[in-house]
Amino acid sequence: MRAARIPGGGVQAVRWEGGPEGRLLLLDQRLLPVRFRELALEEAGAVAEAIRTMVVRGAPAIGIAAAYGAVLAAREARDRAGGRWREAAAPALERLAGARPTAVNLFWALERMGRAMDRAAAAGGDPVPALLEEARRIHAEDLEANRRMGALGAALLERPGAVLTHCNAGALATGGYGTALGVVRAGHAAGRITRVYANETRPWLQGARLTAWELAREGIPVTVLVEGAAASLLRSGRVTWVIVGADRIAANGDVANKVGTYGLAVLARRHGVGFMVVAPTATIDPQTPDGAGIPIEERDPAEVLGCAGARLAPEGVEAWNPAFDVTPAHLVDALVTERGVLRRPDREGIRRLLAAVPGNGRLLC
Amino acid sequence: MRAARIPGGGVQAVRWEGGPEGRLLLLDQRLLPVRFRELALEEAGAVAEAIRTMVVRGAPAIGIAAAYGAVLAAREARDRAGGRWREAAAPALERLAGARPTAVNLFWALERMGRAMDRAAAAGGDPVPALLEEARRIHAEDLEANRRMGALGAALLERPGAVLTHCNAGALATGGYGTALGVVRAGHAAGRITRVYANETRPWLQGARLTAWELAREGIPVTVLVEGAAASLLRSGRVTWVIVGADRIAANGDVANKVGTYGLAVLARRHGVGFMVVAPTATIDPQTPDGAGIPIEERDPAEVLGCAGARLAPEGVEAWNPAFDVTPAHLVDALVTERGVLRRPDREGIRRLLAAVPGNGRLLC
Repeated sequence: MRAARIPGGGVQAVRWEGGPEGRLLLLDQRLLPVRFRELALEEAGAVAEAIRTMVVRGAPAIGIAAAYGAVLAAREARDRAGGRWREAAAPALERLAGARPTAVNLFWALERMGRAMDRAAAAGGDPVPALLEEARRIHAEDLEANRRMGALGAALLERPGAVLTHCNAGALATGGYGTALGVVRAGHAAGRITRVYANETRPWLQGARLTAWELAREGIPVTVLVEGAAASLLRSGRVTWVIVGADRIAANGDVANKVGTYGLAVLARRHGVGFMVVAPTATIDPQTPDGAGIPIEERDPAEVLGCAGARLAPEGVEAWNPAFDVTPAHLVDALVTERGVLRRPDREGIRRLLAAVPGNGRLLC
Repeated sequence: MRAARIPGGGVQAVRWEGGPEGRLLLLDQRLLPVRFRELALEEAGAVAEAIRTMVVRGAPAIGIAAAYGAVLAAREARDRAGGRWREAAAPALERLAGARPTAVNLFWALERMGRAMDRAAAAGGDPVPALLEEARRIHAEDLEANRRMGALGAALLERPGAVLTHCNAGALATGGYGTALGVVRAGHAAGRITRVYANETRPWLQGARLTAWELAREGIPVTVLVEGAAASLLRSGRVTWVIVGADRIAANGDVANKVGTYGLAVLARRHGVGFMVVAPTATIDPQTPDGAGIPIEERDPAEVLGCAGARLAPEGVEAWNPAFDVTPAHLVDALVTERGVLRRPDREGIRRLLAAVPGNGRLLC
């Protein structure tokens, strides 16, 4: 463990340093846990590139990074175009929106920043302080949502046991604390989670590199396994819940998440293991009617054809590299959001959830 | 592709060079496809170590390597103990039998060599020529069985389409040609297989390294994917069959194969995709009543915690590394053996199969 090299106690994937003329620091997650390096970004284009190349990943963290990226876009436009900054910022905002297609939090955050930009343009003067304030608010709200989801999700764990997670839906994937791993943190603290099985999650190995690192440094017992072993694990009776995050949830409750999630959901149901999705309502996209409408990013085949920087497959061989898959809503036993929990989510449940007053604490079951 | 570096046209995982005083050559499959290197072994202990460390892998190839290993064991015992060679060979044979626990072909081959040793001991004189002949026969019979299974399996493919395979059940895993990949070779030649999707198969990446290499050098279109993407592939309707090998088949038809196979079988059935197991009858173990009785090897956690020689997970993290899993017989649509095909294998079908006259060509359906 290189945890000793981490400044301070917390893991922060995304942080803003300084005031309105400051800069965005992104923890380069491609290097973890071998190296701990933060990249300092002062241009919106560099933020878009960092999202595309997975310096920062995880739907909520992507949204937060994009929000700060919008601040940089406005600042560059202000310096270049003065009072006409709102229009001048448009190309940089489009580039941010085009960085990755599946995680809806990216578009959600940029739309929210767009509304703040409209207000700042109407108010006149330097827009950057108000925009930074809005980005910080998005960030703080995500962290608060995570803590709330952690408590709600942990309350669903009826008896102490082990859980299985996929990819990394932790502090590194969010504003801090985590969605699925927020439930793990709260559940472990409450004595209801005794061990976390972490799918290694090829090709990027977010489970073996990031989830294992996050949990081990907090003393939460973690066991890594290859995806192929998950079916045997679920059959063994050793885990009580599968707990995952989400990159986009359609209006009917279908869930896009890291590729491999759908197979886990099928196997969990077959073996009587609960399947829990933990995501803030910012991940719900009411504009997408169902999972078939969610764009699934296909990434560079080279990610699959090699590992740890080494080419492993022979030359001339193709690879298919979808980054996400879609789990139908009927396989989800519990959808945990900061506004409450939906059991067996469906279109009507999602509608009620989005209509609920934020933070009223009511459990929607 | 480094295919140009392969001597001759064929891929042979295991071959004996020279006469009774010759040596065993094992292609070091841990290095493929980056390096092509054969190890020359002249001691039975080195063969056991090569099996344990996966220089040679795949149930039939392990059996063949062990048969040649038994020749070396007898030769060493003859040189050391003269006429008392049969008893003197026992420890080396035990070491071979202890190299890996799951693939029953290892024990099957050693038992067959044991009977040949008993005959040679009774006959007196130098036992090695007769034992080498028996090992060569085991090898040749496996190759012949593969070609026969290839034809039988290919005949089950009703219409041209793509198939999905897991791990490597090819020429490299057998005496040549392959079990699952034997069906692929025959099916491709017959125009019924248009493309092979190959699960990369962590942690050893036999799919990305070995299956992709074997198929690409013969011009069979191959696409590699991570295990997590298989569920999406099966849902997409792009594949007509999942075709895999086996490491041990219990008396009731339950199938032990590379970890990840069981999940594929569940997902294939769910999506109406056929699930075909291809294995010689030497892989059937009538002494093991069902899958629960098959010992599942658990290997070094380091295999999971790293990749391509690099440590990827943080220190202090555990891993669970079962090398195989068990697919219940009822999920198998077709079991293809050299003695015929069983549709939906069960205890009675397996009994009839083992009672059938070898090579009579009758399809047992």
